[in-house]
Amino acid sequence: MKTTNLISEIRKKNSFLCIGLDVDLDKIPQHLLKEEDPIFAFNKEIIDATHSLAVAYKPNTAFYEAYGLKGWKALEKTINYLNENYPEIFTIADAKRGDIGNTSTMYAKAFFEDLGFDSVTVAPYMGQDSVEPFLSFEDKHTIMLALTSNKGAFDFQVKVSEGKELYKSVLETSTHWKNSENLMYVVGATKAEYFAEIRKIVPSSFLLVPGVGAQGGSLSEVCKYGITKDIGLLINSSRGIIYASQDTNFAQAAKSKALELQLEMKAIINDL
Amino acid sequence: MKTTNLISEIRKKNSFLCIGLDVDLDKIPQHLLKEEDPIFAFNKEIIDATHSLAVAYKPNTAFYEAYGLKGWKALEKTINYLNENYPEIFTIADAKRGDIGNTSTMYAKAFFEDLGFDSVTVAPYMGQDSVEPFLSFEDKHTIMLALTSNKGAFDFQVKVSEGKELYKSVLETSTHWKNSENLMYVVGATKAEYFAEIRKIVPSSFLLVPGVGAQGGSLSEVCKYGITKDIGLLINSSRGIIYASQDTNFAQAAKSKALELQLEMKAIINDL
Repeated sequence: MKTTNLISEIRKKNSFLCIGLDVDLDKIPQHLLKEEDPIFAFNKEIIDATHSLAVAYKPNTAFYEAYGLKGWKALEKTINYLNENYPEIFTIADAKRGDIGNTSTMYAKAFFEDLGFDSVTVAPYMGQDSVEPFLSFEDKHTIMLALTSNKGAFDFQVKVSEGKELYKSVLETSTHWKNSENLMYVVGATKAEYFAEIRKIVPSSFLLVPGVGAQGGSLSEVCKYGITKDIGLLINSSRGIIYASQDTNFAQAAKSKALELQLEMKAIINDL
Repeated sequence: MKTTNLISEIRKKNSFLCIGLDVDLDKIPQHLLKEEDPIFAFNKEIIDATHSLAVAYKPNTAFYEAYGLKGWKALEKTINYLNENYPEIFTIADAKRGDIGNTSTMYAKAFFEDLGFDSVTVAPYMGQDSVEPFLSFEDKHTIMLALTSNKGAFDFQVKVSEGKELYKSVLETSTHWKNSENLMYVVGATKAEYFAEIRKIVPSSFLLVPGVGAQGGSLSEVCKYGITKDIGLLINSSRGIIYASQDTNFAQAAKSKALELQLEMKAIINDL
């Protein structure tokens, strides 16, 4: 998907909501466990109920790999379902991959070609030649970790070298990589005060922002410092939406939670 | 597997060789493509031919994910084959994972419980709470990227903060994490001159060393600075061994290449 299509979709829906499909069999409504593929059954209902309010879905691969072959199959069915029924939706494989060049190419093939995702998240530790193989795919996006939402972000990401925090070096350096126009970045909502600094380095790049809701980040604070004229933000919520209820009405409950966020987003867009 | 068992096996075999099972269908002998599961067929022959010369096998998950469900199934069959037939072998899922806490737990379950690997590689960028979930599994090992073998290692890993390169901070900081005795580290063979410095920080930890062979690293240089009284090294070779021949005799050719390295290792051990 081209970035312009994502922006159109945001404008059309008045939403920059991404829904995280982090499916844990211990947390989904128990009546679904009798389905042949409970993970896919859960995702399908969530997607059907919320697709008009969200512009992106983001399955985190960990939750699928934990169930082995069965999980990988559910991931495949989920992305196929999205691509067939809602091709206007931007899809993110939250995989946080990264390896030496020829190996990163295999990961890129796995997520872009075999599964057909629009984007994949990657980790920056191994540098340029671990990320560029992902960037070479046309109309695909690579979302690199910059400043994450967890406590461990303070262990290494904010270390100052030559007057600059590591996450700033990661952002700056990556803008010089080949096909860097295909880069987006992960910046946690729990670090809203950092967005102004980040926008000095990547003024127009899309930022994928986890941490609103369960992790305590504030949507309005993030937008105050991070929003651009083309919005430039994808705000992710996972648990806060998909586990809104464990009853048979879970999909409607998820829709209500998604609607709350979408209405907040609409107000923010209208105020720009 | 306990570290003491790994050390016993190294002593018994006079080898600290790890064989990387990075299976690319374009590179394996073409007669295998008519097999129902060419990836597993290839791995099985390689393992059967080389198991007496190696103490560890390391499938890189990228090469399996690139083939989707079929690939994930081949990975499962490979680890099951190793665990059933050669339980004395140390197994490494080279996955380079890492995510926020509850998500890292899912990855740990995927590799340690569902697949039954002895160890998994992880990336350090997200810090303590992204790695500790892996460390809590008893008799399992977590192998964290420190200084990698690729060119991109110089982008961020050697950035100096408070007088210390990032990879040194990663090493030092991690020694204070809970269950840090379950940590090993990835250090590329292409950076042999760094091993002396690294051994000052982690004097006895096992180091997984890629980059000997195809990437140009030297076994003797690595051992000169990196070996410990319990050896403390796992030297990985992937392409140099498994793609030694594309003929029907590929497994014997792989065995010959493995034997060359094992004999070098035996000489090094005897000289200690």
